[in-house]
Amino acid sequence: MRRFIDLADFQREEIEELLSLARRLEQRPEPQALAGKVLGLVFFNPSLRTLASFQSGMARLGGTSFVITPGQGTWQLETRIGAVMNGASAEHVREGIPVLASYCDALGIRCFADGKDLARDLAETQFRSMDELVEKPLVNMESAMNHPCQALADWKTLEDLSVPRRAKFVLSWVNHPRALPLAVPAATVHMAAMRGMEVVVLRPEGFQLPAPIMERARRAAEAAGGSLRETPDREDALSGAQILYAKEWGSTAHYGDVEGDARLRAGLGDWCVGDAWFAQAAADCRLMHCLPVRRNVAVADEVLDGPRSVVQREAWNRLTVQMAVLHRMLAPRHAH
Amino acid sequence: MRRFIDLADFQREEIEELLSLARRLEQRPEPQALAGKVLGLVFFNPSLRTLASFQSGMARLGGTSFVITPGQGTWQLETRIGAVMNGASAEHVREGIPVLASYCDALGIRCFADGKDLARDLAETQFRSMDELVEKPLVNMESAMNHPCQALADWKTLEDLSVPRRAKFVLSWVNHPRALPLAVPAATVHMAAMRGMEVVVLRPEGFQLPAPIMERARRAAEAAGGSLRETPDREDALSGAQILYAKEWGSTAHYGDVEGDARLRAGLGDWCVGDAWFAQAAADCRLMHCLPVRRNVAVADEVLDGPRSVVQREAWNRLTVQMAVLHRMLAPRHAH
Amino acid sequence: MRRFIDLADFQREEIEELLSLARRLEQRPEPQALAGKVLGLVFFNPSLRTLASFQSGMARLGGTSFVITPGQGTWQLETRIGAVMNGASAEHVREGIPVLASYCDALGIRCFADGKDLARDLAETQFRSMDELVEKPLVNMESAMNHPCQALADWKTLEDLSVPRRAKFVLSWVNHPRALPLAVPAATVHMAAMRGMEVVVLRPEGFQLPAPIMERARRAAEAAGGSLRETPDREDALSGAQILYAKEWGSTAHYGDVEGDARLRAGLGDWCVGDAWFAQAAADCRLMHCLPVRRNVAVADEVLDGPRSVVQREAWNRLTVQMAVLHRMLAPRHAH
Repeated sequence: MRRFIDLADFQREEIEELLSLARRLEQRPEPQALAGKVLGLVFFNPSLRTLASFQSGMARLGGTSFVITPGQGTWQLETRIGAVMNGASAEHVREGIPVLASYCDALGIRCFADGKDLARDLAETQFRSMDELVEKPLVNMESAMNHPCQALADWKTLEDLSVPRRAKFVLSWVNHPRALPLAVPAATVHMAAMRGMEVVVLRPEGFQLPAPIMERARRAAEAAGGSLRETPDREDALSGAQILYAKEWGSTAHYGDVEGDARLRAGLGDWCVGDAWFAQAAADCRLMHCLPVRRNVAVADEVLDGPRSVVQREAWNRLTVQMAVLHRMLAPRHAH
Repeated sequence: MRRFIDLADFQREEIEELLSLARRLEQRPEPQALAGKVLGLVFFNPSLRTLASFQSGMARLGGTSFVITPGQGTWQLETRIGAVMNGASAEHVREGIPVLASYCDALGIRCFADGKDLARDLAETQFRSMDELVEKPLVNMESAMNHPCQALADWKTLEDLSVPRRAKFVLSWVNHPRALPLAVPAATVHMAAMRGMEVVVLRPEGFQLPAPIMERARRAAEAAGGSLRETPDREDALSGAQILYAKEWGSTAHYGDVEGDARLRAGLGDWCVGDAWFAQAAADCRLMHCLPVRRNVAVADEVLDGPRSVVQREAWNRLTVQMAVLHRMLAPRHAH
Repeated sequence: MRRFIDLADFQREEIEELLSLARRLEQRPEPQALAGKVLGLVFFNPSLRTLASFQSGMARLGGTSFVITPGQGTWQLETRIGAVMNGASAEHVREGIPVLASYCDALGIRCFADGKDLARDLAETQFRSMDELVEKPLVNMESAMNHPCQALADWKTLEDLSVPRRAKFVLSWVNHPRALPLAVPAATVHMAAMRGMEVVVLRPEGFQLPAPIMERARRAAEAAGGSLRETPDREDALSGAQILYAKEWGSTAHYGDVEGDARLRAGLGDWCVGDAWFAQAAADCRLMHCLPVRRNVAVADEVLDGPRSVVQREAWNRLTVQMAVLHRMLAPRHAH
């Protein structure tokens, strides 16, 4: 495997093999599998789980890693092609990224959406400007519209919990002080669709997911024998739900318009998941969230501290699936 | 050992065993003792020695470490229970800390005092809110009122220098531009008391150590056959002293009151340790300081650059004792 | 080898041995050569290549490294002797640097020029204040007036490309929004002179290199059978050039005078290397630059993206030569 950029690039069988490898490494560690290998990690944006799990995962496989954080310890990096660089950025990704790739055996890049121009972000303009410069194996540690490591970790979590393939999976918008990127909702809806689930996106008006994301996920759902729909009706969505996946994101109707987005979310304070949300759900309905989560804004303490929450298992699975991805990318053949 | 939070949690024999292990590792390195082990380090506050010595110590034992710095590379973490998180903090320690603990074999946490409410800081409210979330081995890398790694390093330094158990140990307040936490003075006075020394706390009026800290240390002194008293009288304190341990801390009479504290310290510019301080001390009286130290504010160049200073040995012993703690926590049994 | 501070400290034969070792490690990795060794890296200034290549290089030789960044994660460090430290710096290098050195087997320090007082920067006042405190092997990761790792990497690049020893090497000033330090031009001109090349420094009026740097390089050129001269005439300089080494630096005529420097460079926008610069150069003339480079300010896209650019090879050689330096400093004798 040379690229881990988007779950949609893989066949279902390939994903199942990755999950199987993740389980194998969970049970039978291979502390020398990546001896001598170096992973480079470039963070254009903050991280807690991603940073710690990639560094720990690489170490648990016998390899090492280094971290570069543009704008902090390193200068800002320019991504615009043809830029006259007389501003804040001291180096262009066209120099910086191939240099960093040359120092390591695989590279991970995190680069969130600009959040100003939806078409530009949907086209993954920034991530692609770097992707094309890297010949080494490359991992997407969250781009404008994707977060395949989170999606794969969540898929493994659903398997770990024996959630039936056809179960009802509700991705619900939840409240947040400001607009967040669409990467996790986009990756989540695609993952659940690819798994063949009954996927429902629950969100207030103005927060529908972009059409290209929904269309792509709908095709994946159809291919897997599942379904996908969107609704603003909480009761309709949650009735019989096996999974409530809570996530914050910005208004697509006011993309890049901070004030318009703020006006829209001002009246949405009740989109904070409490115990009452589960009234019509399946008895063992679980609460999923990729973290970080703002307590008592997005999800109430009573849910996060209660038995429905599986957020710790999701975070744990970031480590397990990323170790599988790194192993597949970097382990010598005979080690497979 | 599952916890290294407070020197007072240990019996004298256990501490002597740790010091003995530290000496053994100093003389006979065990470069594979912690092979495959991962240490997570969480710094809510800046560090130089702690960061470098934990990373180096883990490496010297064959293990690895990762570093998470809330507010820098990672978002701020909330510690207040029940908080409605619509402010600056994006994640609660109730999620973040167990996640980080799950990625490593042992966790170290540094979280200084808030410095606003003495009772709250004495209760170690913040550190305990995280301690209770961690099932893995946990190291206190400095909390509101404790710094057991520094205290153990200082104990070893006293042993290295063959300072008699009953010698006079003076912990002296020294000047600083602003109020600093009580963690080191509290840990130091307890360490010297536990060692059985004749402990004197020398400080100006308004800077007495909190009663619960003094009382606890007094009991430790009595149990060890030593003594503890406080005085503002420099000549009384330093007469016959074998150790002068200089440390800056905030006024307890004006805890959390920046202006009141500043007024009090305005007239205390002469609390900068110079050669003259040693006039009545033992001929071989040593200057100790945990570092960082502000030269010519807290301690004069003439002392820090002179033969009395043992600050480099104290810093070196941070590495040796922490390696012993990590070894005890993480090395397979047969390696002991 | 105990010190890697300045290329001028070495005989030509020693440099050739280092380059030979770099080539050997490039072809036949020694993944255990520095097993158990720890490298400490102190960055007073930002870094991308230096940080990543030292961490990766140490890992590829089986060792580990830790990073300390004063002012970020760690407090600011004071370098002035005799300072009364009541300002922003919490610790003096006289404490901090020996402590860090004690935790590792070799130390690297990056400390750029103050850029205020040319004589002080030429004297390497800050770097020397730390150098004298370190008994362990020490690497200069860029000081006020030197960057020996870059110079050695560039020397290897010239060898890799089979650039004849006597070829014409032009170091040209190029444009930048503000004054940058003299470390790279000083190290570059000395390297090319030491290699025995026909060295020409091309720069606008007001940007001549300091006399002590030119004199020292001229002596090196003479000893190696080469030459060194300075000119503001682009056609004269570039005619027949085999190498065009582009570099930004501040006006020496207005050193430390931001406004004077800005006035001088205001009219120098055409000092951005484009294809036209190579009209009279050798057909296979190469563009070198240490990076980071501001595209379309210092060097145009057409050159950086064209076949003349060897900047990626220079950056790659940072890794190869630094591994050779670390190997020479830290590998057990029998491993040589």
